[in-house]
Amino acid sequence: MDFSYSEKTKKLQEQLVSFMEEHVYPNEKVFEDQLNAQTSRWSEVPQVMEELKQKAKDAGLWNLFLPESEYGAGLTNQEYAPLCEIMGRSLIGPEVFNCNAPDTGNMEVLVRYGTEEQKEQWLKPLLSGEIRSCFSMTEPDVASSDATNISTSIIRDGDEYIVNGVKWWSSGAGDPRCKIAIVMGKNDPNAPKYEQQSMILVPLDTPGVTVDRMLSVFGYDHAPHGHAEITFDNVRVPASNMIWGEGKGFAIAQGRLGPGRIHHCMRLVGAAERALEDMCRRVQERSPFGKPLANQGVVREWIADSRIEIEQARLLTLKAAYMMDVAGNKEAKAEIAMIKVTAPNMALRVIDRAIQAFGAAGVGSDFTLAAQWANSRTLRLADGPDEVHRNQIARLELQKYQKQEEPFAHALKGIGSEQ
Amino acid sequence: MDFSYSEKTKKLQEQLVSFMEEHVYPNEKVFEDQLNAQTSRWSEVPQVMEELKQKAKDAGLWNLFLPESEYGAGLTNQEYAPLCEIMGRSLIGPEVFNCNAPDTGNMEVLVRYGTEEQKEQWLKPLLSGEIRSCFSMTEPDVASSDATNISTSIIRDGDEYIVNGVKWWSSGAGDPRCKIAIVMGKNDPNAPKYEQQSMILVPLDTPGVTVDRMLSVFGYDHAPHGHAEITFDNVRVPASNMIWGEGKGFAIAQGRLGPGRIHHCMRLVGAAERALEDMCRRVQERSPFGKPLANQGVVREWIADSRIEIEQARLLTLKAAYMMDVAGNKEAKAEIAMIKVTAPNMALRVIDRAIQAFGAAGVGSDFTLAAQWANSRTLRLADGPDEVHRNQIARLELQKYQKQEEPFAHALKGIGSEQ
Amino acid sequence: MDFSYSEKTKKLQEQLVSFMEEHVYPNEKVFEDQLNAQTSRWSEVPQVMEELKQKAKDAGLWNLFLPESEYGAGLTNQEYAPLCEIMGRSLIGPEVFNCNAPDTGNMEVLVRYGTEEQKEQWLKPLLSGEIRSCFSMTEPDVASSDATNISTSIIRDGDEYIVNGVKWWSSGAGDPRCKIAIVMGKNDPNAPKYEQQSMILVPLDTPGVTVDRMLSVFGYDHAPHGHAEITFDNVRVPASNMIWGEGKGFAIAQGRLGPGRIHHCMRLVGAAERALEDMCRRVQERSPFGKPLANQGVVREWIADSRIEIEQARLLTLKAAYMMDVAGNKEAKAEIAMIKVTAPNMALRVIDRAIQAFGAAGVGSDFTLAAQWANSRTLRLADGPDEVHRNQIARLELQKYQKQEEPFAHALKGIGSEQ
Amino acid sequence: MDFSYSEKTKKLQEQLVSFMEEHVYPNEKVFEDQLNAQTSRWSEVPQVMEELKQKAKDAGLWNLFLPESEYGAGLTNQEYAPLCEIMGRSLIGPEVFNCNAPDTGNMEVLVRYGTEEQKEQWLKPLLSGEIRSCFSMTEPDVASSDATNISTSIIRDGDEYIVNGVKWWSSGAGDPRCKIAIVMGKNDPNAPKYEQQSMILVPLDTPGVTVDRMLSVFGYDHAPHGHAEITFDNVRVPASNMIWGEGKGFAIAQGRLGPGRIHHCMRLVGAAERALEDMCRRVQERSPFGKPLANQGVVREWIADSRIEIEQARLLTLKAAYMMDVAGNKEAKAEIAMIKVTAPNMALRVIDRAIQAFGAAGVGSDFTLAAQWANSRTLRLADGPDEVHRNQIARLELQKYQKQEEPFAHALKGIGSEQ
Repeated sequence: MDFSYSEKTKKLQEQLVSFMEEHVYPNEKVFEDQLNAQTSRWSEVPQVMEELKQKAKDAGLWNLFLPESEYGAGLTNQEYAPLCEIMGRSLIGPEVFNCNAPDTGNMEVLVRYGTEEQKEQWLKPLLSGEIRSCFSMTEPDVASSDATNISTSIIRDGDEYIVNGVKWWSSGAGDPRCKIAIVMGKNDPNAPKYEQQSMILVPLDTPGVTVDRMLSVFGYDHAPHGHAEITFDNVRVPASNMIWGEGKGFAIAQGRLGPGRIHHCMRLVGAAERALEDMCRRVQERSPFGKPLANQGVVREWIADSRIEIEQARLLTLKAAYMMDVAGNKEAKAEIAMIKVTAPNMALRVIDRAIQAFGAAGVGSDFTLAAQWANSRTLRLADGPDEVHRNQIARLELQKYQKQEEPFAHALKGIGSEQ
Repeated sequence: MDFSYSEKTKKLQEQLVSFMEEHVYPNEKVFEDQLNAQTSRWSEVPQVMEELKQKAKDAGLWNLFLPESEYGAGLTNQEYAPLCEIMGRSLIGPEVFNCNAPDTGNMEVLVRYGTEEQKEQWLKPLLSGEIRSCFSMTEPDVASSDATNISTSIIRDGDEYIVNGVKWWSSGAGDPRCKIAIVMGKNDPNAPKYEQQSMILVPLDTPGVTVDRMLSVFGYDHAPHGHAEITFDNVRVPASNMIWGEGKGFAIAQGRLGPGRIHHCMRLVGAAERALEDMCRRVQERSPFGKPLANQGVVREWIADSRIEIEQARLLTLKAAYMMDVAGNKEAKAEIAMIKVTAPNMALRVIDRAIQAFGAAGVGSDFTLAAQWANSRTLRLADGPDEVHRNQIARLELQKYQKQEEPFAHALKGIGSEQ
Repeated sequence: MDFSYSEKTKKLQEQLVSFMEEHVYPNEKVFEDQLNAQTSRWSEVPQVMEELKQKAKDAGLWNLFLPESEYGAGLTNQEYAPLCEIMGRSLIGPEVFNCNAPDTGNMEVLVRYGTEEQKEQWLKPLLSGEIRSCFSMTEPDVASSDATNISTSIIRDGDEYIVNGVKWWSSGAGDPRCKIAIVMGKNDPNAPKYEQQSMILVPLDTPGVTVDRMLSVFGYDHAPHGHAEITFDNVRVPASNMIWGEGKGFAIAQGRLGPGRIHHCMRLVGAAERALEDMCRRVQERSPFGKPLANQGVVREWIADSRIEIEQARLLTLKAAYMMDVAGNKEAKAEIAMIKVTAPNMALRVIDRAIQAFGAAGVGSDFTLAAQWANSRTLRLADGPDEVHRNQIARLELQKYQKQEEPFAHALKGIGSEQ
Repeated sequence: MDFSYSEKTKKLQEQLVSFMEEHVYPNEKVFEDQLNAQTSRWSEVPQVMEELKQKAKDAGLWNLFLPESEYGAGLTNQEYAPLCEIMGRSLIGPEVFNCNAPDTGNMEVLVRYGTEEQKEQWLKPLLSGEIRSCFSMTEPDVASSDATNISTSIIRDGDEYIVNGVKWWSSGAGDPRCKIAIVMGKNDPNAPKYEQQSMILVPLDTPGVTVDRMLSVFGYDHAPHGHAEITFDNVRVPASNMIWGEGKGFAIAQGRLGPGRIHHCMRLVGAAERALEDMCRRVQERSPFGKPLANQGVVREWIADSRIEIEQARLLTLKAAYMMDVAGNKEAKAEIAMIKVTAPNMALRVIDRAIQAFGAAGVGSDFTLAAQWANSRTLRLADGPDEVHRNQIARLELQKYQKQEEPFAHALKGIGSEQ
């Protein structure tokens, strides 16, 4: 395991840090103000976002995700990790660099499984940042943590598919630029369990598609991006909109969710790192009871534990990225599951401590702490709840000892001899 | 310690439970819808609230707080605890019964320390629910967890006082019915440390009072109640608006905050109890991976731990209330501090587990979990952060062993022989 | 729920506290020294123990357990709770007052289910403290947390029963005064699940009974009491040794374990209380880095959290005892399960903090912290592991919402209207 | 940061794993049995230990510690980490390979700061495993977490030094082969704070040296190694026994404790890894309530969390080792402090879960869990308590933001650009 940062990475790190300081952090409030000044929070995208995107493009800080693809910057997951972390320090950061969920995941799906026609029509404008997309998987009426429960139907009818169902938490669908949804649904309830589901491209302006309402996360609406509940009522799309093929839904989900999960984790490390920095600054400025908060033992314990937890989570993120690079997303499933459990919980603890150190200011909107906390909290649920990932980790661990074998023959496994 | 509920309490419990089921829970969404339908979330109070208040008044479920006072229902703190808990199950509950913060605390201040004139002018309309009030203590520029830091000035000038300063987290000040603020500020920086501060009544329509903005709590605006940042710029009020007397600010704060803190805790027990109930229902309805969530060991652990933690917090709340009743608010300071630390943290854990059990639905607004979580989170800060209370508990505990005394002479103290 | 202490309780509290200070604490080291001076730690009982027992008898502090029985002191569970807590402050305390496990549980079994002959032969000398007993339930070869797994056989053969099996963690069997075992085993594998097991009296000097070895608990041997692994090899006892009747094993276990569990919890509250007291004294005596440990914020947090957790656990213990008194052991099963989970975990946290505050001294034998920690740790397993109790609590909680009923109809249940 | 294992490391890993399986694990019980069969647990060293040492020597698995030194195997800290981890899986493991505390630390002191004469006399027989040593720093009468408190005196008198004081927790001093102590004490109370202390070599057979008693850890005596309380009563040693020079005590301690601390952490990772393996095996063998424990969700959560925590701690250990190798022990102080806090707490959690999964067997001596738990618990205190390390981590973190600088200028620091 070589976690050293390449020269390329180091250079991009420096550029990104400068860009964030110069352009992104100072415009977080501008973005919010422009949003509030609109007639509706959903009608437009704050002007500053498009300006920032152009600046990032000009600086060559664009589409840094997408390993092993001619479309992106040609970075490995491990190279991308420290960069994604920097973007994740701001909630408006990832979009500036065209590296935000769910678009990155959707672009990866199109790169890997899309037809040339699909790429031309949807991947191209996504890569250029012209349009946005959403991913419609979760449903309100079933426990979607078990994706086999998903009940939206995608039925072939001549040259078309008919989609029927209700989806929610389709993130990004509130954005006026959002043009396309990748919808997961059942095309054959009688197929083997993991071959019943398909994914299909549904343009949001197709008749029968209705955004019923925008959901909130704690009290945030995340406009103009947002999280939509969408009804698909006898929605007809051309058969060529099917991705990869009927019954490939699970296979695509596996391919899509690995990178998506680790990107979230990289960003969470950044969010936690910024919270720790904010906390360290704040506690040196405030002095209740005659001494700076920074001199209070309890506060110092928060700082130390935060540093320790961030360090460990970052290293585990790097290991997972490394495993994805050298062994493939499938072989890295244990590491991906581990970091998917670890990063949100770590970030929640670190940010919560920072909130406590900030006092009432911590729960408000003058700082990004409360918003980052709410975002991190959703990531204990999104892309699989903690409990599903823990169960998989346990399954993989128990498998090591299921066969009759010499005691301790697996000692090396734990240690990771092949790394 | 007799924690039995009196006949009076039991009867009120039954009435309140019925009232909540019949009138409050079904109108939570109505309240939100009416609020969203207004031209501004701050311009009006949803009609349903005034209707519910009238119904509660008619049912005799009004002003149940206020122990030892001719104004209230004549209940002890211990009798009030299980009733307040029921109201706390809904975020719109307390106001329906005229038992919401900060009005209850402000009414207590007026009952205890107000002049007849002050009572006539402000207490009367507060008791009848005609007007609302706010409490302006916390300031953005200082660490207000140490109230000696508070820097707003209240200076005598002839027959008037002049108030200058900036306050924030003045909860309730967004409400169009909010007419009066109790403002804490320094009248004599040279007085002994705990006699520098005063509290004074400032009508919100006094020239120089400006509500600069409404703050958010994890994205929630809590309209129309809200949390305001208010500038007091050379605000002149009659000298008769001073409460109790110059330099009495700390003394009033102590008297005010004891009951206020325990009311919060009672409500938090109710919020946690409702979250547990919601969780128990939900996990019996959802079945990922072939069996109800209710049969998953991890979920059952959440339920068991939640039940255990609620039970203990409720008992500690009752003990604190009992101590306030029999020994006085001052003697109960250890118990009040203990429950002030315990209840919010307990509620946060219970609600967070429920959110996780609900999946994505848990963080949205279809259920009250996320909103209750955010509210509970503020209560680890409001009325003193956990750390200040823990410090006081430790101080009291350490004092038991400071004098030279026979080993173990204090064994009985721990056990509580005098209870 | 009236948790007030009766006059009788208060008087006994005072007497016990004095007795502990005067006689028990000063002799903890004497006991250990006498034990170490013996030729074997198992051959004799330190002389000081019998002296202390005589003193306790003379003082009327004897057999304070046994509610609702002519044999004991006539105290309710709630009256006994604060007394048992005081005894539990010392590991040698309970035996001094003839209130130690497993003898108390065994005596309760004999009082409730024993024949007159069994009482005459075994209960009498146990009540007088002449002999000791053990309880042989757990087996090394099966997961005994599920008592239906227990596989020792108890087979009728004419006027006798033949016992075959291996038991371990038969606590108390190391004591030279230990004369009798209550053995649980299967007499009819074809009976209904909960009627297969019986309990039978087996004198330890019966041919075929072999104490194979004494087990250790985190390095402690707990001599001369100890924890034995015992083989029962074709052990024949008279048929009259059967307790209550064939197939009654589970019924007796339920009756036996309720009081036994809560006694453990009462003692754990005492152990935690003493650890907190020790910690408060120690941290005022030691001053690394220029100030007393007592002034370190982190240490103060330990003290505050310990006080909070002890208070809550004590209240829950009292509630469970109260429920046992007014509603019966069976109806109190939720409360007993709750405190059985809570008390050991609480004690472990409190004692662990005290150990940390003591530094290296905390893990050694100059103080009782490490030994109390080890003892508390076993109580997360003994009489059912945490997980089994949590599962039962969850089952009871979920049952409240299983029937089709109006939402919130159970609000009162949570609140405990009938208390 | 390149965490890849070198070919050399991989080969040694394989050899060590085989050696442990073939020779060490099967002899853990033999060691204990031989110890119990001795007339005293302190009089001899179980024969099997010397046999195992010879086998390890023959296999070239000897003195693998000692980076940058001609005496050892020439491994870097990073290369040694995975090897030390394997040894740490057994409590008797490290000595077999002559890699046990405190001898390794003492040998490092002699390598770095010893005179040729000191090396000849003490280092040589230590390297060959002929003799053992102890380190006498902690004192019973002062809070030794602050080493400036240490009060033993080391006073020059002609060609000799006179040592006076009482030390405890001198680990290893119980061993009949233990011949030499490194004693820390004050030679000049008037020197600058960190130059008052010296370290001196004191042969244990010097007149005036008395081992007063052996201390226990929880109930373990750790014979024949043990932890001694030693009185130094006018002990005279030649002036040439001074290490490095008067006043160099702190400087040596810093140099000694860095590697010592990380070795402990490496071993703790191994101990945790073995506990997880034991737990995974056990829960597949036991089936209470009709299904294997391995299928219980709660147990699976324990397994998953254990795997996650071990992974992270191992990575942090490797990072700390890497930093020591490339930047030096002093520059790696933050990382060393972080892992010193992390590893014991991680191991305690993992082992505690395994204990719970094992049931009563977990607290006894048939498995190594309880003994490893007790050992890990001491490591939250030994070589500095958690709180001291956390304080240092916080101090280093806060320093990053103490100067007036552009916001976020330190973003790269957190990310670790120079790694």
